[in-house]
Amino acid sequence: MSRRSFWAWGLERDEPGAEQVREAAARLSRRYGVEVASVVPPRSADLRLRPPRIRPPASLAAICATDDHDRAAHTYGRSFRDRIRAYNLQFPNPPDIVARPTTEAEVTAVLDWCSASGYAAIPYGGGSSTVGGFEPPDGYDGIVTIDLSALDKVLEVDGVSRAARIQAGAYGPGLEAQLRPHGFTLRHYPQSFEFSSLGGWIATRSGGHYATNHTHIDDFVESVRMVTPSGLWESRRLPGSGAGPSPDRMAIGSEGILGIITEAWMRIQARPQYRASAGVTYASFAAGAEAARRIVQAKLWPANCRLLDEGEAAAAAGMDGSRALLIIGFESGELPQDEFIRHAVAIARDAGGSVEESDIRISAPAARGDVAAGGDADGGTGRQGAVGAWRNAFLGAPYQRNATTGLGLVAETLETAITWERWPAMDDMVRGALQDTLNRVCGGGTVSCRFTHVYPDGPAPYYTWEGMGRRGAELEMYEEIKAAASDAIMAAGGTITHHHAVGRLHRPWYDRQRPELFAEALRAAKRALDPNGVLNPGLLVDV
Amino acid sequence: MSRRSFWAWGLERDEPGAEQVREAAARLSRRYGVEVASVVPPRSADLRLRPPRIRPPASLAAICATDDHDRAAHTYGRSFRDRIRAYNLQFPNPPDIVARPTTEAEVTAVLDWCSASGYAAIPYGGGSSTVGGFEPPDGYDGIVTIDLSALDKVLEVDGVSRAARIQAGAYGPGLEAQLRPHGFTLRHYPQSFEFSSLGGWIATRSGGHYATNHTHIDDFVESVRMVTPSGLWESRRLPGSGAGPSPDRMAIGSEGILGIITEAWMRIQARPQYRASAGVTYASFAAGAEAARRIVQAKLWPANCRLLDEGEAAAAAGMDGSRALLIIGFESGELPQDEFIRHAVAIARDAGGSVEESDIRISAPAARGDVAAGGDADGGTGRQGAVGAWRNAFLGAPYQRNATTGLGLVAETLETAITWERWPAMDDMVRGALQDTLNRVCGGGTVSCRFTHVYPDGPAPYYTWEGMGRRGAELEMYEEIKAAASDAIMAAGGTITHHHAVGRLHRPWYDRQRPELFAEALRAAKRALDPNGVLNPGLLVDV
Repeated sequence: MSRRSFWAWGLERDEPGAEQVREAAARLSRRYGVEVASVVPPRSADLRLRPPRIRPPASLAAICATDDHDRAAHTYGRSFRDRIRAYNLQFPNPPDIVARPTTEAEVTAVLDWCSASGYAAIPYGGGSSTVGGFEPPDGYDGIVTIDLSALDKVLEVDGVSRAARIQAGAYGPGLEAQLRPHGFTLRHYPQSFEFSSLGGWIATRSGGHYATNHTHIDDFVESVRMVTPSGLWESRRLPGSGAGPSPDRMAIGSEGILGIITEAWMRIQARPQYRASAGVTYASFAAGAEAARRIVQAKLWPANCRLLDEGEAAAAAGMDGSRALLIIGFESGELPQDEFIRHAVAIARDAGGSVEESDIRISAPAARGDVAAGGDADGGTGRQGAVGAWRNAFLGAPYQRNATTGLGLVAETLETAITWERWPAMDDMVRGALQDTLNRVCGGGTVSCRFTHVYPDGPAPYYTWEGMGRRGAELEMYEEIKAAASDAIMAAGGTITHHHAVGRLHRPWYDRQRPELFAEALRAAKRALDPNGVLNPGLLVDV
Repeated sequence: MSRRSFWAWGLERDEPGAEQVREAAARLSRRYGVEVASVVPPRSADLRLRPPRIRPPASLAAICATDDHDRAAHTYGRSFRDRIRAYNLQFPNPPDIVARPTTEAEVTAVLDWCSASGYAAIPYGGGSSTVGGFEPPDGYDGIVTIDLSALDKVLEVDGVSRAARIQAGAYGPGLEAQLRPHGFTLRHYPQSFEFSSLGGWIATRSGGHYATNHTHIDDFVESVRMVTPSGLWESRRLPGSGAGPSPDRMAIGSEGILGIITEAWMRIQARPQYRASAGVTYASFAAGAEAARRIVQAKLWPANCRLLDEGEAAAAAGMDGSRALLIIGFESGELPQDEFIRHAVAIARDAGGSVEESDIRISAPAARGDVAAGGDADGGTGRQGAVGAWRNAFLGAPYQRNATTGLGLVAETLETAITWERWPAMDDMVRGALQDTLNRVCGGGTVSCRFTHVYPDGPAPYYTWEGMGRRGAELEMYEEIKAAASDAIMAAGGTITHHHAVGRLHRPWYDRQRPELFAEALRAAKRALDPNGVLNPGLLVDV
């Protein structure tokens, strides 16, 4: 089995070969009108990491890895910044140990050891963070990164209540594969689906499949079990409660600073049998936004309601770049979705959208045999049609960056959310900041936007930008562009992150966003749960 | 204008006259086969409270009341226990001062004064707590109850994003009256609607109108502004965010121990124009529950999906006591609801329910003029039909207890939530505990149940019980029955409260329910925000 790449998205076998890099260089040369020379990607054998400074106790030695590859692969996530540093073999502060507990008792033992020794204890999730969510801190004598991938089981399925007890180390595909024989699905598909874990999703308030209504993992958590240096935290399984502030909502989004989530009861879904979708085009992004607003305010709650601006519609759907595209999708395990899509299309047209009748697709249940064999939808191979193509492109996108890494390209995505009435001004500000900085720093570049999620009170815009930078200067160029966009988001009143989390990357802006007194409360809570301050130090608050 | 009654639900004019009490006594005599003598309710003039022990600073004197009536009316909420104590003129520990700030600056000044002096500072909300949510604590030299009813304005309406900035002291009817001219409604109708405030709803995680999907006030809060002894806490207006644990979710449900909520941006709704409803009957409560489960798991999200057991169906809908009743209702400001109710009825029938076609009611928009005049729905006088009757009965229920108070009747409601698969066992346990204790303590009594809210993973059952007790011994009898039911809820795995909050009443069971480490974190957070421990002492945690 192929190991995880220490720098690229995916496994070592997904690392680009020389030919792919040459093609990528040639493509960038054409696109930017500059000569882009090919390069040879780094190899694991090139790694020269600081030797481990600490040794695990004998009782934990069997679950602790110290080899360079493993430690390098657990140093950075997969943001542009992370990839460049890893590609350049820059690992000045790697973890000393990668611990892979196989039981909750071992999680506790590792954490207790770290807490007693004052070593930083960093939950790894699935390693896909784009915000520096598990990057080791400076100033610690020892760093232990904790990888829960051995705790990957669906332990219990309650089909009556539609909930499942799942270990935090389960990755997307494995989790779905275990639910499928029961006829259920979590239906949480962040773009990192393949290389992210349930515990990571919960700790970072991951945003998933559903574009409306319940979008974040938050709403699918029924209860949380979390190991802290002060003991075990476990909430009751409840469909709803009014008993004090929600304990789960303190654990959700805690980014590893309060404890290590070991399992959760999650609300699960019947596997979709009925689907309906339509792609509606608009003369402008703003016109499409008005349609999305009306659809979500009518509370039709489509599973998909993604709006692509003119640029994204051209890139993703082969359109001519003059029109925006609203993709509306309904799905259900129980009910035909014909009427729902009809209602949505009526609103979409009333808002000025164009759609051919033939582009409104409604599908009946798959044949029973297909479903039983897992041959439908998600993760399976039989998925047909535009939605399937979208999903494959969506999950495949992170791989696309592998071949261009190190060629000088500076490219990233960023996301936010804001209320509808302030969105147009924010869109101007963020695009303006990105384009101006790209022009200044890279001599030009592209900016595009889509809505990944929409709420009755506002959209979650997701910006994609790129420019041709100078090899070796990518990080400074990146940081200038990212900072300008983040400043614009803050000034416009948005959130520094809708679903990518805070991490080290967003921390300066997060500090401006959250109420200072909430940070006080969180610091106090952290001191109570993690008295020696070892859990993911530097994330969210300084203690 | 009539003052609030110091013991009954509503205003002084709602206190029962001698004739009403005689009729109530006769009714109880017939129902229980015992002689129930009439009594004379207490009058405000009978109050003899401990004189105020403290005086406000001169700068706050104008907003501070110290008369017996005001202080008595701000001592207890409206649980059975509260009403009996107030009725019996038992006010051993009233607030010394009732402060009515007229600006946020005055809220801050009152709180600063309390914090500096070590006086308990207790937010009153609307005074409708049924759990001792603002009952003064022992052990303080001074008690200041803070009544925000002067801060009752809708300050801003953002019709594009469907949100409004509302002061925390706004009561239900006033809040709706201010939104109505804009064409919007909050649609949050707890049974306490008339005498509860936005701030109280948020601080107690109030459950409202919607029986499915977004039920608690939690989901309608866009941002919160809260005054604490350590300063001002204000979150950004955001439709969604993944930036750390939600600050709002720490304020929501904090029951006044972290700060005093002064305003909030709330998600509002278009006023309903389309409605559809049906009443479906079942051979048993369990059969009706199965239908409710299927409807909510199909994600049709009806606004109403309330299931009455055989006893409640007889009492509330004139049925014969042999069948359960599922009331399904859809409403929308945007879309005809015909297809939604057809889908729901199909599921309801498939689950064994009976409904005549003529009992499926679908209504078109009211004439434009009516709507503009506010003559539709909620709070208006023109509301017709079964749903309107239900709402009037629902909001009127608390008044019904006024005439029986002091006659020896012991009666209360209690509520919880639990997952579907454990619900049947819990229902047996809670009914068993209530009936056994009623039999032992009261020599008999009645127990009934309805679902007030249903979720994909479980229902929120609401129990109503009563028995004929002994005058003067009601409190001990009540406490024994309440404790037995609460123990049963805990043992069955439910929550001690789905939407009534914790208060002093539920505290012993809450302490068993929440993770101990969450309590540690909450204590630490409270110490950070309220270093002198003056805010609603004894609620949720001891510091």
